[in-house]
Amino acid sequence: MKELRQITVIGLGLLGGSISLAAMRSLPQVKVAGYSHRPSTRRKAKKLAPGLKIFNDLKASVVSADLVILATPICTFEAMFKEIADVLPHSCIVTDVGSTKVLPHKWAEKTLPETIFYVGSHPISGSEQRGVEFARDDLFVQSLCIVTKTNKTDKESLQTVATFWSTLGCDVKFMSPKQHDKILASVSHLPHIAAAAMINTENINDLKFAGKGFMDTSRIASGPANIWADIFFTNTANCVACIDKLITELNKFKKAIKSKDKKQIEKLLQQARNKRGAFIEYKLKRKELIT
Amino acid sequence: MKELRQITVIGLGLLGGSISLAAMRSLPQVKVAGYSHRPSTRRKAKKLAPGLKIFNDLKASVVSADLVILATPICTFEAMFKEIADVLPHSCIVTDVGSTKVLPHKWAEKTLPETIFYVGSHPISGSEQRGVEFARDDLFVQSLCIVTKTNKTDKESLQTVATFWSTLGCDVKFMSPKQHDKILASVSHLPHIAAAAMINTENINDLKFAGKGFMDTSRIASGPANIWADIFFTNTANCVACIDKLITELNKFKKAIKSKDKKQIEKLLQQARNKRGAFIEYKLKRKELIT
Repeated sequence: MKELRQITVIGLGLLGGSISLAAMRSLPQVKVAGYSHRPSTRRKAKKLAPGLKIFNDLKASVVSADLVILATPICTFEAMFKEIADVLPHSCIVTDVGSTKVLPHKWAEKTLPETIFYVGSHPISGSEQRGVEFARDDLFVQSLCIVTKTNKTDKESLQTVATFWSTLGCDVKFMSPKQHDKILASVSHLPHIAAAAMINTENINDLKFAGKGFMDTSRIASGPANIWADIFFTNTANCVACIDKLITELNKFKKAIKSKDKKQIEKLLQQARNKRGAFIEYKLKRKELIT
Repeated sequence: MKELRQITVIGLGLLGGSISLAAMRSLPQVKVAGYSHRPSTRRKAKKLAPGLKIFNDLKASVVSADLVILATPICTFEAMFKEIADVLPHSCIVTDVGSTKVLPHKWAEKTLPETIFYVGSHPISGSEQRGVEFARDDLFVQSLCIVTKTNKTDKESLQTVATFWSTLGCDVKFMSPKQHDKILASVSHLPHIAAAAMINTENINDLKFAGKGFMDTSRIASGPANIWADIFFTNTANCVACIDKLITELNKFKKAIKSKDKKQIEKLLQQARNKRGAFIEYKLKRKELIT
């Protein structure tokens, strides 16, 4: 496994800020550097994490890095890779925390030199909040992190990235980028689309009468629109397939309700209830923090 | 306003149990009686609320009541009304806590004698839990209660029912049953259908990789299937219209994602985000407890 002397985090939002804080706490012997193009973010990050070495120049921030972590919106990755490609030190490891993985792998392969080792990461943590002010050094404790690899991925770098996330508190799972994007479309991107579409049907006056059910069902739709637009934009085929599946399931409800088939309505509801019950039981057993 | 000496709660689940506890706390001068057909529920209720007079006979539980509150699944109401119609004391007020109101009003009008005054109620509280063991005497504090009336509703009884809910801590709003069912289909029944349909698209193995977003979006789908089947069954036209609206909105996302129109994806997400923001702001201003 590669020894890490410096880690550079590109982008200091909720995730990038939390990675910086968590790395400083868990790896006190490692120098942690951060880059943000926004002066206001750099100021806030300086206050929040006085030990963090903050850069206003992207290239300068990575020249001495052993591990570079991109924590900016997915659609910026390709340009970032291009910009840093020439200045990254030999055998530097590059990863990112994007919520889709097929395109980041493709961009890295196309853009980064062979002396640079790319591995994909997706820590399944975060919230509907945005900005470094919501960063927490315990954001990754007892949460899942999917690390993605292809047959071209360097094994030592893969192990280094996996160990990095474990050190921050994550339970690491390995997957191909393709498998990742298919599964995440289903368990993360679809719930987001469903929540947003549901809100978009609502009349704001009617929402005065909404309760806790609506509150929870709609929570994720308060997430940053640009970040999520990038996610769907980089996972189109899987998202479309999931939307189609959802429409199929909605039509089952519609048919049962329209024909006043109470048994069938109850059957569809019970099916959902049982599946969610199994999900909760699995997560509780693994002591994953999901509440 | 009518003086209440005895209140009888029919059905001692999460809601009926909570009404009993809240009434005993808020109206110590009033006798509170409860009925359940299940011996196990009666035993649990006795333990939880020693001051509650518990009946195993429906008719006996209402003969001395000034206010009867039905807290059983909606589809039992008509039979209940029929069974108690002859034994209810003169000018007794009957209400219920069903999540749809058009049919309960219709059933009451058809079934109860003219000497009995029916008013509809819908306290917007509860959780995905079920059973008297989850009952809480503060379930109604700072929550909304919609009280429904038609042009046949007795004014004094309407006021009595509204005051009852206020005393338990609710913010009371008045509506026609028709308006109620239309609005609630949109802000409560649709989110439930969307959550259940979304879960029904999922593969249980994939759910191992689901995080907090899925957890929250799907929470309400853990609610009791029979209760919710009754709700949709008694609000079919509105539910079907809402499902159609949701499919329309999902198709907007599908179209934008399929055609890789990032601007449009972001626009749809921003629309949802803004509407939810306005909802949260409204609820915070009113200090309604929605978290």
